[in-house]
Amino acid sequence: MDFKGRQERLAEALRRERVDGFLVSHMANVRYLCGFSGSSGTLAVSLTKQGAKLAFFTDGRYTEQAKEQVQGARVAISQTAALTEAMKWLAGQKTQRIGFEASHMAVAVKEALVPVRGKLVPTKEMVERLRMVKEPREIAQIHAAVNLASSVFATVLQSIKPGVPESRVAAELEYLCRRLGAEGMSFATLVSAGARSAMPHGVASTAPIPAKGFVILDFGVILGGYCSDMTRTVHVGAIDQKSKKMYEAVKRAQQAGLDAVGPGVKPSEVDRAARKVLESAGLGKYFTHSTGHGVGLEIHEPPGLRKAAKRKAGQKRPAEAPLEAGMVITVEPGAYIPGMGGVRIEDMVVVTEKGRQILTPTSKDLILL
Amino acid sequence: MDFKGRQERLAEALRRERVDGFLVSHMANVRYLCGFSGSSGTLAVSLTKQGAKLAFFTDGRYTEQAKEQVQGARVAISQTAALTEAMKWLAGQKTQRIGFEASHMAVAVKEALVPVRGKLVPTKEMVERLRMVKEPREIAQIHAAVNLASSVFATVLQSIKPGVPESRVAAELEYLCRRLGAEGMSFATLVSAGARSAMPHGVASTAPIPAKGFVILDFGVILGGYCSDMTRTVHVGAIDQKSKKMYEAVKRAQQAGLDAVGPGVKPSEVDRAARKVLESAGLGKYFTHSTGHGVGLEIHEPPGLRKAAKRKAGQKRPAEAPLEAGMVITVEPGAYIPGMGGVRIEDMVVVTEKGRQILTPTSKDLILL
Repeated sequence: MDFKGRQERLAEALRRERVDGFLVSHMANVRYLCGFSGSSGTLAVSLTKQGAKLAFFTDGRYTEQAKEQVQGARVAISQTAALTEAMKWLAGQKTQRIGFEASHMAVAVKEALVPVRGKLVPTKEMVERLRMVKEPREIAQIHAAVNLASSVFATVLQSIKPGVPESRVAAELEYLCRRLGAEGMSFATLVSAGARSAMPHGVASTAPIPAKGFVILDFGVILGGYCSDMTRTVHVGAIDQKSKKMYEAVKRAQQAGLDAVGPGVKPSEVDRAARKVLESAGLGKYFTHSTGHGVGLEIHEPPGLRKAAKRKAGQKRPAEAPLEAGMVITVEPGAYIPGMGGVRIEDMVVVTEKGRQILTPTSKDLILL
Repeated sequence: MDFKGRQERLAEALRRERVDGFLVSHMANVRYLCGFSGSSGTLAVSLTKQGAKLAFFTDGRYTEQAKEQVQGARVAISQTAALTEAMKWLAGQKTQRIGFEASHMAVAVKEALVPVRGKLVPTKEMVERLRMVKEPREIAQIHAAVNLASSVFATVLQSIKPGVPESRVAAELEYLCRRLGAEGMSFATLVSAGARSAMPHGVASTAPIPAKGFVILDFGVILGGYCSDMTRTVHVGAIDQKSKKMYEAVKRAQQAGLDAVGPGVKPSEVDRAARKVLESAGLGKYFTHSTGHGVGLEIHEPPGLRKAAKRKAGQKRPAEAPLEAGMVITVEPGAYIPGMGGVRIEDMVVVTEKGRQILTPTSKDLILL
């Protein structure tokens, strides 16, 4: 991965933000900037005339790992809090305005952090903005994660039978992913069957799969630190016309969403394209979430693909940054009818110079089990 | 679980804190207070003369789940941010001093949160303090999680062979746990073999198990929302005297830590008891982390069992709250020699009126594979 390029782009962004020091405490951002994949530590950045100088602070649990992984930053191990050590180092660097990650630092942590010199300045999404557009190697890594997860789908279907607990399906699915080398799942696997499929966020429970109904599978793996995310909905037992129509409407909505993706397109336009199809099918009020989100080192990253913010009286609509080539997002509309069930279909897609490339290879035709 | 009792105890604690409103945004705290196990939402508490009035705010993804799970609070679903809705509701309740969780709320979230009326007051560990002492039903649930995880250990040992990737061992381990009904793992499973065992926090990698050396397994499951945590270290191939001595020293240190646990004992005294044994064995400098932590709805909870804070010149040593009956903690000393390898042994233990009850049933005798 291009740590040098990332550190340089961060330095530019910090300069524009008019800070000469920066504290990175969000671990996904630390990993992005210097490669450290552990769960605790602080990266400090000091801007100099020549560029950026970086130092990484962590504790004795990570001595070996930090030595092995950290790129482009000196490593310091200490028994006191990493943030405190980072502040001391910045004081030695004579930084005056020290940016911190206001979306990730807790109020109590901030209050306890008295700069030895200079002052703390809140910043927002400095590193997340860099992370939105992926490098080719990142896209390749995400693609590998998507393919790994997709490759187990056909096998997992064999475990979906009436009477089998949802959690057993999740167990089989996760085992297959792990056997293929997944470092872990990117979130708690969702398996929701029958009436439970009407919960858009139904973590696999011990409830048995009923004789008839939809089963939503929403899962992802972590591979090389990068996440995948996919959803398919299958149907167990004889399907009625209403359910079939609902499935087909969600499928069309998802395709409309995918078709709308491209550079220069606003995220809310992708949401609109998918939502419109469900509204025409009379399912608009059952689509209760947003259409998608960015994916990378974290399972939920900017940009969010949601409805455009409402215009307030006398104000302009807030500006919305358009999609750019290199962004990796999900497109995942759904419809959920309480008491009956739900359908969601989700692919991952890369925005390209000319439009889009769908990463998820799995068919979206309705599967009856 | 005793949601009513918890809500009453919170009301008392809020009264002592002199706030008449409270925002709960940390999801483990939300679950503890009202039973909601989803990943997004805000619980608001308004103190009245009669007691506490609670309202829970979440989005359309959780309509069904909130209805099913939430106890002792009205449920409101909204499209706008749950925190904003909670603030509006508190304004309607005419609360004047609204406590928020300063250790969990990000600076940026706090800044965007302008009270409709009244003022925001930072609070610290209001709910965590209640959670430290477990109810009998919580201890039973934790014990069930500990037993589930322990029950797979003997089977997992069969997969530990030279040449097998660490990640494969983790895959087998997690599959066995899931098959037995675990809702998930309580943290990324650590499997570190050979020289990698010198990393106290070595997440299972694709590295193969060497012909000779220690293998640390540190893992836990979630069952009924509650976490377990255990570590055992085994040795592959012929063991030399130095390694054997190291193992036995860590085992003695762990026993000394366990023996020190009891009501009224300071957490740092447990740390001291374990650390002293390793220091006598000449391994003090290789024990680079703290001795343990609380476990419950989260894998890391207060109290922390670490070295006593150093006394600063002219100041008293900061007060340290002693252990109480009902607390559930880990005792997990270790020693890690760079280039050679490491050993850690970890049990979970409940503080009882008379001393302690060790929950982890697995033997700690050295296993040679």
